[in-house]
Amino acid sequence: MIATVRIDWGTTNARAWACAADGSVVERRHAALGIRNVGAAGFRAAFDHLVEGWPVTAVPVVMSGMVGSRQGWQEAPYAGCPASLDSLAAALIRLPEPETILIVPGVGRGGAGERHDVMRGEEVQCFGALAREDRADGLICLPGTHSKWVRMAEGRIVDFASAMTGEVFEVMSRHSILGALMAEAVPGHDGGAAFRRGLDRAGEAGGLLNHLFSARADALFGEIAADEIRDYLSGVLIGHEIREMPRLLGGSGEILVIADGPLPGRYRTAFAHLAIPARLLDAEAVTVAGLGLVLDHAGR
Amino acid sequence: MIATVRIDWGTTNARAWACAADGSVVERRHAALGIRNVGAAGFRAAFDHLVEGWPVTAVPVVMSGMVGSRQGWQEAPYAGCPASLDSLAAALIRLPEPETILIVPGVGRGGAGERHDVMRGEEVQCFGALAREDRADGLICLPGTHSKWVRMAEGRIVDFASAMTGEVFEVMSRHSILGALMAEAVPGHDGGAAFRRGLDRAGEAGGLLNHLFSARADALFGEIAADEIRDYLSGVLIGHEIREMPRLLGGSGEILVIADGPLPGRYRTAFAHLAIPARLLDAEAVTVAGLGLVLDHAGR
Repeated sequence: MIATVRIDWGTTNARAWACAADGSVVERRHAALGIRNVGAAGFRAAFDHLVEGWPVTAVPVVMSGMVGSRQGWQEAPYAGCPASLDSLAAALIRLPEPETILIVPGVGRGGAGERHDVMRGEEVQCFGALAREDRADGLICLPGTHSKWVRMAEGRIVDFASAMTGEVFEVMSRHSILGALMAEAVPGHDGGAAFRRGLDRAGEAGGLLNHLFSARADALFGEIAADEIRDYLSGVLIGHEIREMPRLLGGSGEILVIADGPLPGRYRTAFAHLAIPARLLDAEAVTVAGLGLVLDHAGR
Repeated sequence: MIATVRIDWGTTNARAWACAADGSVVERRHAALGIRNVGAAGFRAAFDHLVEGWPVTAVPVVMSGMVGSRQGWQEAPYAGCPASLDSLAAALIRLPEPETILIVPGVGRGGAGERHDVMRGEEVQCFGALAREDRADGLICLPGTHSKWVRMAEGRIVDFASAMTGEVFEVMSRHSILGALMAEAVPGHDGGAAFRRGLDRAGEAGGLLNHLFSARADALFGEIAADEIRDYLSGVLIGHEIREMPRLLGGSGEILVIADGPLPGRYRTAFAHLAIPARLLDAEAVTVAGLGLVLDHAGR
């Protein structure tokens, strides 16, 4: 019996869950129908495809992520920071049709002269993570194209910041001289040593712009092989992110990491190598839980 | 009366000077015949075109830059660091034909377990700069695709490091979401305020990966306009370079800056804004002088 439909609709992918009244997942779907890929058929067609056969006009449907951005289905203006489940629930946007659909706003921070930042979708995951861990405080790391780091206190999002780690990795791998020097890793390749070498480099003097060049210099001197440059670059970038972001946001204690795909392993290795306590959470579980919490707080 | 021919042959461009016995420039040439662009006709044809009519079989010809790299005309293995004019002169490579041509080696640093770095061409400019400034010590900044920072002491290159500033700027401008957000600046556009804002941002907490994202966040919040994102990005990157590199290489006192094209203005603004004493030197003058010094020390 489907009681709610919960959707995380991002730039590249859309994930949907049909949930029972107790929040357990009855059915899950995944489509490469991110807001960049919905194509000419538009959001409604993509949505209908994603939830086909589910009772979306009869039960609450809640969506988070870039679907609520200006480039999405309907803009849901950023909620302010600090943000609570109540403030997100109060700022839900209802689609005109089907009117059962609610879009969770992202969160923005920073007034005039302050540091600005934005996120869409991660805020929901953070509340899900706190609930599942039975915590009210902590620093949360959400690795990705634009990694988000979120400081939680008393059950609210009190600060956050983004790091362009994933995008810099992709762009430098594809379009820079480092990419030109990279060889494809052979199957079974273990880039762990080069990755850890990059993590260590990130802690040395010189800054990221110098450390990026070190991939070329170390390759020229035969210190890293052509099929290790990618791992080394990843280590340098993740090492910078993991060192800088907690400094920016403050706080101590175990970091909660929310990730899926190939990233959890990289970040787990990185936190362990740098002796930073961290716990890896399942991205799907915290997303489903967080979307449910927003519905609960909206009284649905 | 041409007494020497001096050539700075880089990745993108080749510059050649015919000089009198006193080192003054008799004629200068510039061609977009960098080692990436020599094409199928090869180096000899590009060289003949560049020096047409000059007595290159009768006078010493000295070349520096990427022409001596593995992808160049003939490889001139890196000289070690510290490097002196004598050690560069002793490591000159003579082309088999025409045998009047000498190639200056680049400089490499770092044994096993040490920090590695390389440069080709900048070492010559550094010696030219010291001579023209009548100095034996100092920190030299050579901005570019891969900026070089060189520490000189007692007339020798004692340390140096690279920063990928220019390449990260180009790659992020062309291939990242920041590039997608950028608008072309209109003629007469003065991006000085956004550039200085980027310089200031580079001095704040968060690190470069966060500061790169700040271009997107600040644009979303209307703090910088679409036609200012490029200037802001430039300020963030140059700000990081200028803060980090002197920390890595140590030393104090006025920094000598060797640059041409549009970069001198940017770096002059940056050093002034950060209240770091710096003096801008003419790149052509120090290159011609440096190449002459190498010849002198080789006894030619």
